[in-house]
Amino acid sequence: MQDKTFLMIPGPTPVPESVLLDMAKHPIGHRSKEFSAILKEVYADLKWLFQTKNDVFIYTASGTGAMEAAMSNLINEGDKVLCCVIGNFGARWANIAKSRGAEVIKIEAELGKTIKPEQLEAALNEHKDVKIVTMTHSETSTGAKNDIKTLCEIVSKTDAISIVDGVTSVGAMPVKMDEWKIDVLVSGSQKGFMIPPGLSFLAASEKAFKMHEQCKYPSFYFDWTAHKKNLADDTTPWTPAVNLIVALRTALKMMKAEGLENIYARHERIALTLRKAVRALGLELFVKDDNCASFAITSILPPEGISVPDIRSTFKNDFDIVVANGQKTLKDKIFRMGTLGFVSDRDLLTAVASLEAVLAKLGHNFEKGAGVRAVLESLY
Amino acid sequence: MQDKTFLMIPGPTPVPESVLLDMAKHPIGHRSKEFSAILKEVYADLKWLFQTKNDVFIYTASGTGAMEAAMSNLINEGDKVLCCVIGNFGARWANIAKSRGAEVIKIEAELGKTIKPEQLEAALNEHKDVKIVTMTHSETSTGAKNDIKTLCEIVSKTDAISIVDGVTSVGAMPVKMDEWKIDVLVSGSQKGFMIPPGLSFLAASEKAFKMHEQCKYPSFYFDWTAHKKNLADDTTPWTPAVNLIVALRTALKMMKAEGLENIYARHERIALTLRKAVRALGLELFVKDDNCASFAITSILPPEGISVPDIRSTFKNDFDIVVANGQKTLKDKIFRMGTLGFVSDRDLLTAVASLEAVLAKLGHNFEKGAGVRAVLESLY
Repeated sequence: MQDKTFLMIPGPTPVPESVLLDMAKHPIGHRSKEFSAILKEVYADLKWLFQTKNDVFIYTASGTGAMEAAMSNLINEGDKVLCCVIGNFGARWANIAKSRGAEVIKIEAELGKTIKPEQLEAALNEHKDVKIVTMTHSETSTGAKNDIKTLCEIVSKTDAISIVDGVTSVGAMPVKMDEWKIDVLVSGSQKGFMIPPGLSFLAASEKAFKMHEQCKYPSFYFDWTAHKKNLADDTTPWTPAVNLIVALRTALKMMKAEGLENIYARHERIALTLRKAVRALGLELFVKDDNCASFAITSILPPEGISVPDIRSTFKNDFDIVVANGQKTLKDKIFRMGTLGFVSDRDLLTAVASLEAVLAKLGHNFEKGAGVRAVLESLY
Repeated sequence: MQDKTFLMIPGPTPVPESVLLDMAKHPIGHRSKEFSAILKEVYADLKWLFQTKNDVFIYTASGTGAMEAAMSNLINEGDKVLCCVIGNFGARWANIAKSRGAEVIKIEAELGKTIKPEQLEAALNEHKDVKIVTMTHSETSTGAKNDIKTLCEIVSKTDAISIVDGVTSVGAMPVKMDEWKIDVLVSGSQKGFMIPPGLSFLAASEKAFKMHEQCKYPSFYFDWTAHKKNLADDTTPWTPAVNLIVALRTALKMMKAEGLENIYARHERIALTLRKAVRALGLELFVKDDNCASFAITSILPPEGISVPDIRSTFKNDFDIVVANGQKTLKDKIFRMGTLGFVSDRDLLTAVASLEAVLAKLGHNFEKGAGVRAVLESLY
């Protein structure tokens, strides 16, 4: 039978057909009036999505590229960077900061848990010369969600700036850049944006731009100043991934038609209902507290005696569903189900019914139908 | 009438339908076995195209990203970089080197001309401590072609390494990385590769990798070591532009079916025949010497009394053909016709016949049909 693969991983995520068809259009000239008109719309819609008055730059790069774009426009050798680490993607900030010569201080939480405001306050009190504080909103490696609003509020009272990884949160859960006083916010295209991988995004506050002006060797490719100047002219400094930007326009129009609050509510409903179903099947969630759960990704422990590789291969072979393994120390300890971007209540039902089928096939002892029943009771 | 735009600019270039249809396929997981199998093929075919035993890294980035990837894996603050500048893209190397704290020395040629071997020899004699020499193979802003083989041979006799911008030359004109002793070669997807913009490529010699090991702060996103390690496992360090890589596989298969020598011969035939036709129409070429002419892009001076904007708008409005303006100081002084990638003898006839039509409409006094006749006489 033809490939019917359904991606239930934290990216790439499902892409709508209209967006895929945009991808197949012949690229137009990136310096043409037609393309500038598209960029103008996209730049405006990105500000809406980021909930900011700041410009949102488009990088032809992975999400990690936008992370480097944040660091490489700010850091001088020897600068102190405080990294809030609750998983692999939090640790990546620390590695990027070091790659620019920064002195890195880490505050950490146990995997599956989040940074406590008092941890951050204590660290900032101890290290008054911290220039940058990095944090991860939705930690893709664990499924935990930091309280960015509170953490950025704390940073905003100091001279430091906050940098937030919103790669799997923007377009999935509330991220209010200006209201929450986020100084630098980055995200990636193959996540809540419903388009294939290849673009990433960055917005920077006035406070961050002032720090950028002191940066001795900003990255040429990711340079904020060049991007700001070109954005004002509805263009980009270098040849961008034209097809992805045309696709992004369509995806952003779909998002605007749905409305931000509806998008957030949909992701919250699907993720939290999935958690109820998982519990109803007798499985354990890696992130215990619903208040700390990402709406984008849910990490689940396998039941006693059943392995993560068996769960993943049964999903794949029997139902063409791809779920993610844990990463690094969590490999084969958890599996992760993404519910991010172009996902619906039907996908939730599919996920839960298939999870039941996988567990039944692998011999897990549970009340058949309890997962779907939990969904129905939660939704209606 | 529906859009029939034909891009005759130096990128984006025409994309085959089979490649466009690949773009519309749903992205697959970038950590899947299926995707690794695709990457394995692509990595092997890129080595063939670059004519090298070195690994060829794939960056999700514009060509400028690959240029930064070259510099940011090598330069320490204060290093001396010698830049061979024959146009805007040569100057870009100097700007990127400065953005990493390098001390830049330039050797230049008049626009439309190329670097003489003795210029390079003299500069290297004067500055024995030069660490890196940058050069542009096909200078897209003028249409001139440096003699990379000779220049890299000179560099190879010193401790310096050569970095070559092959953005509009790889896949269009002979570039033999290993035979010509090129240490670092970069290129971009929307050029000879026949796919849309969004990917760029870099290969580095052993000599370059030794210098990389001394680099204090290599870019995290573009890091050669991370890319080399992941390439060995048929993967990429960060989520790549999956759709573009699937499209690239198809384009590389097309190129292998045609054969490298045939690809080069096709580009040479089309570019040099276009030059004959331009002369037959009484127009002046910006690059006078056929031996210094790029096969990718031809810069043409407008006839007396006819403006470049009028030529470009007549091409666009009457024939749906996009030709490029000059850049910076050459703006409105020349127009540039790209003959790069998925181009055929039919496109050459189209270009010349349309150029005649544009000139006739704008009142240029020339023997009608002389351009096409020059093509036919040259081809047969």
